[in-house]
Amino acid sequence: MTKEQLFENIRKKSSYLCIGLDTDIKKIPAHLLKFEDPIFEFNKRIIDATYQYCVAYKPNIAFYESMGSKGWESLEKTINYIPKDIFTIADAKRGDIGNTSGLYARAFFDPQYSKLNFDSITVAPYMGKDSIVPFLEYKDKWVIVLAHTSNPGSEDFQTLKIENKKLYQLVIEKCREWGTDDQIMFVIGATHPETFKEVRKIAPDNFYLVPGVGAQGGDLKEISKNGFNSNCGLLVNSSRGIIYASNGSTFEADAAREAAKLRDSMKSLLETYL
Amino acid sequence: MTKEQLFENIRKKSSYLCIGLDTDIKKIPAHLLKFEDPIFEFNKRIIDATYQYCVAYKPNIAFYESMGSKGWESLEKTINYIPKDIFTIADAKRGDIGNTSGLYARAFFDPQYSKLNFDSITVAPYMGKDSIVPFLEYKDKWVIVLAHTSNPGSEDFQTLKIENKKLYQLVIEKCREWGTDDQIMFVIGATHPETFKEVRKIAPDNFYLVPGVGAQGGDLKEISKNGFNSNCGLLVNSSRGIIYASNGSTFEADAAREAAKLRDSMKSLLETYL
Repeated sequence: MTKEQLFENIRKKSSYLCIGLDTDIKKIPAHLLKFEDPIFEFNKRIIDATYQYCVAYKPNIAFYESMGSKGWESLEKTINYIPKDIFTIADAKRGDIGNTSGLYARAFFDPQYSKLNFDSITVAPYMGKDSIVPFLEYKDKWVIVLAHTSNPGSEDFQTLKIENKKLYQLVIEKCREWGTDDQIMFVIGATHPETFKEVRKIAPDNFYLVPGVGAQGGDLKEISKNGFNSNCGLLVNSSRGIIYASNGSTFEADAAREAAKLRDSMKSLLETYL
Repeated sequence: MTKEQLFENIRKKSSYLCIGLDTDIKKIPAHLLKFEDPIFEFNKRIIDATYQYCVAYKPNIAFYESMGSKGWESLEKTINYIPKDIFTIADAKRGDIGNTSGLYARAFFDPQYSKLNFDSITVAPYMGKDSIVPFLEYKDKWVIVLAHTSNPGSEDFQTLKIENKKLYQLVIEKCREWGTDDQIMFVIGATHPETFKEVRKIAPDNFYLVPGVGAQGGDLKEISKNGFNSNCGLLVNSSRGIIYASNGSTFEADAAREAAKLRDSMKSLLETYL
C-alpha cells in the first residue's frame, strides 16, 4: 500500500485508528474455546465488528508465537482474512545481520514462502543499516523502525545523549538516509507527547505508528495536535481497550463501540487540526 | 543449564563450539528433499554427526519462520531432538514491552505452551529493562543480550559515544544490574577482536556468545586469547562453515570434519591460554 492510498483510507473513514490484535487464549470469551481455532475465531469476529472504524490491524507476533506452530497457523488465517484495503502491521520487532533480516522479510512479506503477506513490519534498529535494508527491498512494503517506544524501558537507552542529540533522534536521522518516507515509518510512543513536536522537525513527512494510547495512558488529543502532518502522518494503535472491551456474549458489539468512540474522537481531531 | 554445567561440558569435550543451525531449504542436499520434513531431516543428521564436537546448538529462528507454520514445526522437532546435555540457543533477537516480552519468553522457554524448551534466547536491548526482565524470570534459563554484533551495521549505533563510553558498553553495564552472570550472556562479534579485552574489564564473569568466526572473517585465536576467563567464558559459533561444508552424499561426514577441526583448534587454545 502506498502512502497516498493509506491517506485516502484515513480520509474516507475519518480515522487513523490501528487495532492491535494481541489475542491471548487466556483472555478471549469462554464460549469461543469450543471452536477448532479459537484465536482465529476471535480475530475474525473482532475484524468483522471493527473493520469500518479503523485503517490498520496490527497483530503482535509474540501472542501467536507463544502458541507455537498452532499460533502461527492462526496468524496465517488472520492475515488472509483481513480485507485488502486495510493496512497490516506485523508487530514483530525483528532485526538481524543482513542475510538473516532478508529471511524475516521473506517470512512476513512473501506469501510464496510463508502464507503471510503483511504490508509492514516493526524493526529494532540496534544492529544498524544491514539489519534494516533487506526489508526495504520489497516494493510497496513498509518498515516501521522503533524510535522512542511507549514503555518505561524506553528511557534506558533511547534517550541517551550523543553530543547534543538523543539516540532515538539519531536513529531517525540515519534511517531517513536509508529509505524514503514512502517506505519507512517510526514508532513513537503516545506516552511521550512532547516527542512528537520535536520529531516532526527531523521527520516531517514520515508516518508514525503510535502505541500507548489507552492502557498505557497516552493522550490522543495531545499527540494528534503535535504529530499531524498534511497527510495525517499518524497511525494510533489501541489493543486491549478495544479487543477486550468485554469478554461475554456481547464482546463483538462492545469492541465495535470502543472502536467507534475512538474513531469519533479522531474524526473531530482531524477536522480541528488537519 | 547452570554456568557450572556448561563449563563442565566445555572441559569434557575440550570444545566451546556452538553450531548454528541456519537451515535453508535452498542450500541443503537435494537428496533430502524427498523426506516429509527435509529441514528436520537435515538438522537430525547434522546433530548426529557433530554432537560430539560441540557444546551448543543455535537455530536462527528467521530460517524457520521464513517457512511459516511448517518451519515452526521443523524447529519444534529439532529442539526436541537435541541431546539434553547440549546448551540450546534460540537466536531470535526478540524484545518488546514487558507483557509482550513475557509471551516471547513463554514461546521459547515454556514447553507447556509451545513445545519449545530452549536454554537461552538472544535479545535486542533497544527497548530497555522491561523488555529483558521477563526472560530472567525463568529459572535456569539464559538471556543473551546483543552488545557489539558482528555485522557491518554494528558501527551505526552500537559504538556511538555517550560521554566517554560506547553504547554497547553502557548496554553491558546496565544489563549487569538487571541480572547475574548466571543468567546473562552477551553477544560480542568475532569481527571485533579488540572489543574482548576491553569488555572483559566490565563483564569479567559473563559468558559471551561469539558469532562471526569463519564466513564473516573473525580470528579464533585472537578472540580466545582476549576473551577467555577462568570458566572459558566463550561460546564461539560457526554456522555455514560447518553445516554447508558440502552438499552431496557425504555432507554429514564433511560437517563432522569441519566441526572436529574447530574443536581441535579450541582444544589447543584451551590448553595454551586457559
